[in-house]
Amino acid sequence: MAASEEFLTFPPQDALRLEPHLPPAAGAEGAGRITQDGRRRPFVTLTFATSLDSSLALAPGVRTALSGPQSKAMTHFLRSRHAAICVGVGTAVADDPGLNCRLAAPADTAAAAAAAAAAAAAAATQHRHQHQPRPIVIDPHGRWALGEDSKVVQLARAGRGLAPYIVASAAPPAKRRELLESIGGKYLFVAAATSEAGNGVARFRWADVLAAVAAEGLDSIMIEGGGQVINSLLAPPDSSLIDSVIVTIAPTWLGQGGVVVSPPRTVDGSGNPAPPMRLADVSWHPLGEDIVLCGRISRSSE
Amino acid sequence: MAASEEFLTFPPQDALRLEPHLPPAAGAEGAGRITQDGRRRPFVTLTFATSLDSSLALAPGVRTALSGPQSKAMTHFLRSRHAAICVGVGTAVADDPGLNCRLAAPADTAAAAAAAAAAAAAAATQHRHQHQPRPIVIDPHGRWALGEDSKVVQLARAGRGLAPYIVASAAPPAKRRELLESIGGKYLFVAAATSEAGNGVARFRWADVLAAVAAEGLDSIMIEGGGQVINSLLAPPDSSLIDSVIVTIAPTWLGQGGVVVSPPRTVDGSGNPAPPMRLADVSWHPLGEDIVLCGRISRSSE
Repeated sequence: MAASEEFLTFPPQDALRLEPHLPPAAGAEGAGRITQDGRRRPFVTLTFATSLDSSLALAPGVRTALSGPQSKAMTHFLRSRHAAICVGVGTAVADDPGLNCRLAAPADTAAAAAAAAAAAAAAATQHRHQHQPRPIVIDPHGRWALGEDSKVVQLARAGRGLAPYIVASAAPPAKRRELLESIGGKYLFVAAATSEAGNGVARFRWADVLAAVAAEGLDSIMIEGGGQVINSLLAPPDSSLIDSVIVTIAPTWLGQGGVVVSPPRTVDGSGNPAPPMRLADVSWHPLGEDIVLCGRISRSSE
Repeated sequence: MAASEEFLTFPPQDALRLEPHLPPAAGAEGAGRITQDGRRRPFVTLTFATSLDSSLALAPGVRTALSGPQSKAMTHFLRSRHAAICVGVGTAVADDPGLNCRLAAPADTAAAAAAAAAAAAAAATQHRHQHQPRPIVIDPHGRWALGEDSKVVQLARAGRGLAPYIVASAAPPAKRRELLESIGGKYLFVAAATSEAGNGVARFRWADVLAAVAAEGLDSIMIEGGGQVINSLLAPPDSSLIDSVIVTIAPTWLGQGGVVVSPPRTVDGSGNPAPPMRLADVSWHPLGEDIVLCGRISRSSE
């Protein structure tokens, strides 16, 4: 392992507070869900960090330090507890993200680690490798020019992360496909629908994407960003596909013009404005200077 | 007192957590501040409630139930601890707000009230009357058509609130001025500056408004809304006039198109984008299903 590799730790007591909002253990009752159209789908966790003015970043493609180091460790803890993690192509292109889990040891073996450091370290390594999440990148227009210098490719080759599955609507260049398959990744082909916004932008139906993910045996997915992905998932009726919401809020204002999380306004079956979307089973957890909000989409507001 | 009058209670333990973020007692050291131009100004608390997507309301002028009953009680507790409360004319016109304090008993006499209910009730009444805040309404264009049926006028006549001071730039209609003065209110005349946004909209400089408030012997002011007032105060350099920030966040998304709190982007003296504005001395307090964020504007981000 490279000396520069960074490991993160997340305190067991913080992990415990998140436990009720996490997917059930693989294979347990409740792992995987059935959508209204009868298809299987994974447990869906939506998670992201915003400023007080609900911005993810100062501008599209601008990496913005928002939340503190504890929040970063939390993200990697959450990754360790999901079969898959998902970002949109905008994030993949702008950030060249690693999309792996860099948690030093699973929180639930931390006590054991203190008692038997050597054994626990071995277990932790094994656990980390078992729990690398599968990156899912949503790329309706084939924009992501995956190459040898992409971080996910390098991490997969180094055995420090899994190769991505790219959700696409059309065949990619052969070279890109070969590269992806050489590291254990693949393309998942899903039919694109034209956006209901009528702006000609192709997008996928979330139910289709989640069915494709479930078909790969992935029974939980953590959806991380960016803004378009989050806002489209929060728009009813797709918001009913979300099982758990974990939002970190940092005590800062990024100011007007940022990449804002705010779902589009929708109308109900009668053409009336849908009521604002509320979270139920809400809990708030301070984490460093930030606050973490856990909840689920209220059934009454779907 | 009318039987329909509503009284609110705010638990002493919640009040205690807010204490470090409140203005010092009147006359104490630190009551009132001096601005950079040497003028006296009141202690300024900025407080408001937003959705997760930083909206105050679904649309301008639309009253939107956001935060829970505990947050409402907190607002009235905060009003009991400030010499003045301030809203913009948009809020005054849209909401016809009472702008009084409806706290049943001051939190700091709650223990005494339990021990000696009758005596404490009398003390509470006295305390409430002592601590009715002075409403300050910022109305650069003379839009607020104050009349006999305005709630603030009725409350002032009933002795259940103070008459407003209206910050204006030009003489109002004589009848309106007579009405205001008949209930103990007045106009505070301040020179309007043209907005730096260059959109021809007259606005006041916050330093001028606060100097006018201080000149009335009011040594603390709680600025409550609406969106324009909050965003203009959060814009540097005026943000340096804020002593305390108390923001309530409700676990709901109002969706795109709401009245959003997000300060305008500014540039520093060299024309570079100013860094995002961060809060310091941050604390988070759950209140019902909401969270209350207390802090102050970080000196490094002014």
